[in-house]
Amino acid sequence: MIFDKMLDKPSIWLDATGPYPEIVLSSRVRYARNLIQYPFVQRAKVSDLKAILDVVRKAASDSELLKGSAFIEMRSISQLDKKFLLERHLVSYEMVGDNKDRGLMISEDEKSIIMINEEDHIRLQTFASGLDLFTVYTFLDKIDDELGRNLDYAFSNEWGYLTACPTNVGTGLRASVLLHLPGLVLTKEIEKVLRGVTQIGLSVRGLYGEGTEVKGNFFQVSNQTTLGKKEEDIIKGLDKVVRGLIEYERNARNTLLNDASPQVEDKIFRAYGLLKNARILSSDEVINLTSAVRLGVGLGMIKNISMKTLNDVLIISQPAHLQKIFGKKMDTEERDVIRANYIRERII
Amino acid sequence: MIFDKMLDKPSIWLDATGPYPEIVLSSRVRYARNLIQYPFVQRAKVSDLKAILDVVRKAASDSELLKGSAFIEMRSISQLDKKFLLERHLVSYEMVGDNKDRGLMISEDEKSIIMINEEDHIRLQTFASGLDLFTVYTFLDKIDDELGRNLDYAFSNEWGYLTACPTNVGTGLRASVLLHLPGLVLTKEIEKVLRGVTQIGLSVRGLYGEGTEVKGNFFQVSNQTTLGKKEEDIIKGLDKVVRGLIEYERNARNTLLNDASPQVEDKIFRAYGLLKNARILSSDEVINLTSAVRLGVGLGMIKNISMKTLNDVLIISQPAHLQKIFGKKMDTEERDVIRANYIRERII
Repeated sequence: MIFDKMLDKPSIWLDATGPYPEIVLSSRVRYARNLIQYPFVQRAKVSDLKAILDVVRKAASDSELLKGSAFIEMRSISQLDKKFLLERHLVSYEMVGDNKDRGLMISEDEKSIIMINEEDHIRLQTFASGLDLFTVYTFLDKIDDELGRNLDYAFSNEWGYLTACPTNVGTGLRASVLLHLPGLVLTKEIEKVLRGVTQIGLSVRGLYGEGTEVKGNFFQVSNQTTLGKKEEDIIKGLDKVVRGLIEYERNARNTLLNDASPQVEDKIFRAYGLLKNARILSSDEVINLTSAVRLGVGLGMIKNISMKTLNDVLIISQPAHLQKIFGKKMDTEERDVIRANYIRERII
Repeated sequence: MIFDKMLDKPSIWLDATGPYPEIVLSSRVRYARNLIQYPFVQRAKVSDLKAILDVVRKAASDSELLKGSAFIEMRSISQLDKKFLLERHLVSYEMVGDNKDRGLMISEDEKSIIMINEEDHIRLQTFASGLDLFTVYTFLDKIDDELGRNLDYAFSNEWGYLTACPTNVGTGLRASVLLHLPGLVLTKEIEKVLRGVTQIGLSVRGLYGEGTEVKGNFFQVSNQTTLGKKEEDIIKGLDKVVRGLIEYERNARNTLLNDASPQVEDKIFRAYGLLKNARILSSDEVINLTSAVRLGVGLGMIKNISMKTLNDVLIISQPAHLQKIFGKKMDTEERDVIRANYIRERII
């Protein structure tokens, strides 16, 4: 079963092997596509949705690039499994919020995903570790070409790809980068920097995308504009901004090291001490503590923990992951104890 | 020099070798005595004070039991040294608050002390590790006998030993025990228990005696009555009450283990993690953190730290001790960093 394979380790695109692992967790690009033969998901009948599921699933199964992908019918899985997929960033809240006929194709390496009947018929996504937008975009585009040979995409010569929401019309492309910016937060420069980012037309969100709050100094930066620009230019634009953010973050970390070393070191090692010793840990506390430890690893203060371990902890210590790993339903209190034990053994 | 010898380790009566080390830090008994030839300290002239210093110092030097004692003239030492002696519980605030001619005799093992010209001409004290009131009292009484052969104590057949403050008249005896009662604090029984203790005529104070606040769940319990009772009965009465407190504390700890184990364990190990990892630690935080760790050692949860190490940390991490050990004046900020480093290396 697909879920068993995923247990106990996060998606491979969180393995911290990509460029700038001390600041960038992952890059993600997605296309929104719709099939010409069917109404948009919002207006589609059940029979339409079922047909779309079948057609897209068939096309994905025939794809060389997606070979070995697993299919998950969202209606058929438990609430816990839905939560588990959410925690892995493999589905959106829209995919799990109701009982519509929606489906998910997951490539063997979890780097490529198709959400079927989310807001659009097709949401094709690819992920990569670190800042690697061009690789991930190139691969996305190839899969899209391949699928496009078997599927009739709704496309207008004037507007480009047609989507359920006008904000996606044109390229249907959204690229986003997940950044860890504790330096800018600690030097209190973050607001100014993010204001700049939004002023040039990008959007900034929290760890779990649209509408979620910022936790643990993680920020998702993505393009807002999908229309009137070439795909490559959108990617290039975002890449450039992210490289700027990396530079700002590095400067901020240097400032911290020079100006407030004991305070920052104290914050980092206290977090490390708590992660290693606490017997009760909530998810939110883990996010905040690992954020500080991540900064410590990035600054070279903590040497015996890898970024990969921190990513593991971040993903695996979440409620649904814990319950699936331990194979039982647990209330918050029990989870907080199990979580602390688990992290203590993993962090070492 | 006497101070060099004391550096880097606390007094031997804090070595956690006595009975009930997991709950009782130390036992202390003192006699207040005055010389018949001189007015009380408050009314004495400078020449009187000097004479008293000389007479008592001579008597102490001739004592077999106090052989090898060092004499410190309080006027001649620095503010830092005064603070250092205070931190070691070897002098009272009264001894260091002004520039009067006062003196201190310290036995080689720091277990016997004579404060000369404190509130009374003589405050003879003996200390022991753990709950050991009878031993410490017996030794005190022997020294007192020995000194009494060379000194004329002010004594009334009706009232007993005469003292500057009426609360000490009679036996001049005050016995006190320093207890660590985190179990009773955590189970919220402490107020009720201490109310009982004060109702039967004992007094309860904080770590540094009269007028100091309770910190780190440390409580000093001592007799208030010095008049109309035999010395042995005062000691017996206090000993009995302390044994009751030990029993209550043990029950409270068992209750905690049974009813709130993860919460207590979490509190203990978080404290341990912070002590081991923080880079900035204030004195007060150290008192609170070591209090939790001490409970953990007492409950057998923490095995690689001894009570002696915790006592060392408690005494040595104090401001004057740190400054004397590192041989320089340091402001609070610098001390907090040095303290954290020092504890990290000692706690292991």
